[in-house]
Amino acid sequence: MHKETLEDIGEKELINRLGKFMPSNQILDDCALIKNRNNDLLVNNDSLVENIHFNDLTICPKDLGWKAVVSNISDLLSSGSKETIGITISLILPAKTEWFWVEELYKGINKALKKYGGIILGGDCSKGNQKAISITAFGIQGELELRRNACRPGEIILTTGIHGLSKLGFLIQSKMNFDNNVSLNERLISKSIKHFCRPKLYPNLIKNLLKTRSNKKIKKLGCTDSSDGLFQAIQDLAIASKCKAILNYEKIPKDKDWPKGDKWENYYFFGGEDYELVFSLPKKWAYNLSKLDKNIYEIGYFTIGEPSIEFTNKSKNQLLKNVPFKHF
Amino acid sequence: MHKETLEDIGEKELINRLGKFMPSNQILDDCALIKNRNNDLLVNNDSLVENIHFNDLTICPKDLGWKAVVSNISDLLSSGSKETIGITISLILPAKTEWFWVEELYKGINKALKKYGGIILGGDCSKGNQKAISITAFGIQGELELRRNACRPGEIILTTGIHGLSKLGFLIQSKMNFDNNVSLNERLISKSIKHFCRPKLYPNLIKNLLKTRSNKKIKKLGCTDSSDGLFQAIQDLAIASKCKAILNYEKIPKDKDWPKGDKWENYYFFGGEDYELVFSLPKKWAYNLSKLDKNIYEIGYFTIGEPSIEFTNKSKNQLLKNVPFKHF
Repeated sequence: MHKETLEDIGEKELINRLGKFMPSNQILDDCALIKNRNNDLLVNNDSLVENIHFNDLTICPKDLGWKAVVSNISDLLSSGSKETIGITISLILPAKTEWFWVEELYKGINKALKKYGGIILGGDCSKGNQKAISITAFGIQGELELRRNACRPGEIILTTGIHGLSKLGFLIQSKMNFDNNVSLNERLISKSIKHFCRPKLYPNLIKNLLKTRSNKKIKKLGCTDSSDGLFQAIQDLAIASKCKAILNYEKIPKDKDWPKGDKWENYYFFGGEDYELVFSLPKKWAYNLSKLDKNIYEIGYFTIGEPSIEFTNKSKNQLLKNVPFKHF
Repeated sequence: MHKETLEDIGEKELINRLGKFMPSNQILDDCALIKNRNNDLLVNNDSLVENIHFNDLTICPKDLGWKAVVSNISDLLSSGSKETIGITISLILPAKTEWFWVEELYKGINKALKKYGGIILGGDCSKGNQKAISITAFGIQGELELRRNACRPGEIILTTGIHGLSKLGFLIQSKMNFDNNVSLNERLISKSIKHFCRPKLYPNLIKNLLKTRSNKKIKKLGCTDSSDGLFQAIQDLAIASKCKAILNYEKIPKDKDWPKGDKWENYYFFGGEDYELVFSLPKKWAYNLSKLDKNIYEIGYFTIGEPSIEFTNKSKNQLLKNVPFKHF
């Protein structure tokens, strides 16, 4: 008799089932919360596994260290962390791993911590036959609680930047023949590789949100990051907040040299590893924030309805048929 | 040219080198500490990798889940945690893993949390070609700070129990031919398997330490757990505290049916995974604690000298020549 495997049940169902073992279903949000008298603590854990999330061909260990930290702090930011305390690092490495590789990894880790705050609090290293880096990051919950389930109908959907670049950077680094019909200019190539190898975060968002808030009673906002792609981020918000997202295709910012065509739309919307924040705000707040902060783009709105995504321009709805990347 | 690998440099040197990347060398203690206005937080991370730390032949997933939690909480206790807040769980699993395995693992995890406190705060699951379970556990630092570097010359060395049983349980479960010349009785066999598969913790130690403390000024004590074996624990304390341990062989408690012979001494002193606490106390405190708590054994004392271990009975010093198990 065939017994049910993780491959059979798929990633989504796996997450659902694991969630049932947890008292508050925290696996569904970006971070876990540890309640504390003064400062609530945000905790996030992310693992990167060789040949699943990275390989030696596409990223050097220094960049990998940077990226591992950034992907964790991104989750803290998307929960409203006002300060990163630090990280613990758990490594699994084959015995044949060169010390140079480990040293470079730690250099990248410390470089990212220097830039975005936090220290290495501890770690361990085990032997295994496949490299894996598991980082647990700790942040302090700020005044604004950003949560996936806090978007409300009528709110504007915003994002902190352009998507797809990291995916393109990955394709270039993998030397994959991703499209014979386009020739990319040098600027876009180098920008994409940078986005893939050294993604940046935007910690100022929280400050700017507080600056532009007119109603001090609002303490909770809908937010997540686009680490699994822009569509996945919006879908996660829609499902957790039980509302429908309407996107304005024309307003979604793209790099000026981004090629046209279905393939490129896919890279844009499903690419992942962009670490932009995707969130929603009441109209007035959204207006004030976009006026203050030129890196913020309004791309649509939430409305009452079944959790789903639609475009204002109906002809674009075929884009939504593509299934996001699955790990299992 | 051969480049230096982790195998070349060995586990100890690897830990030393990784420690240099951290501001306070926290990798050398059992837990990392997060300072907080009211409650300092203790954080510990431990990874179990298939075929390095466990395999399907020797331990079932339910016991593995139990043990993964216990090994983490043991580190919290050995730092003086007064309460376990919870854990995050990061799994790496091959796509062919049966859902039943994951379910059983979580049942074991929740069983241990029910027994020793704490909830699942969150987690994630990645694909990989080798199973790995990485748990990060959070506890609240109690009044007594237990640290590896706080043993002092003149203090008595104590431990919460008998060693070697877990190693024997592992050998029995592996069906390895560990000694042709002894026949083990049924009681010892079943007790050893239980120690290996469902190790227990002794959270009452902290309470009993507080009860028997006469000098309230003492807030820091030397302590670690024997997860890497009794000798390794004493050596870690001696090195971190810069003093010499003198052990009284006759006082070290053994199971009454524990076989005699060099091999069995090795299993006893180097076995590991016993999760007993090993610590040191001023004479009077040690006396009062052993009187109150019949599970506590005085096994020696610390004195001024180069970090090292010696037996009062010199003929036993040959036991110390054996090299502890290394992962790299």
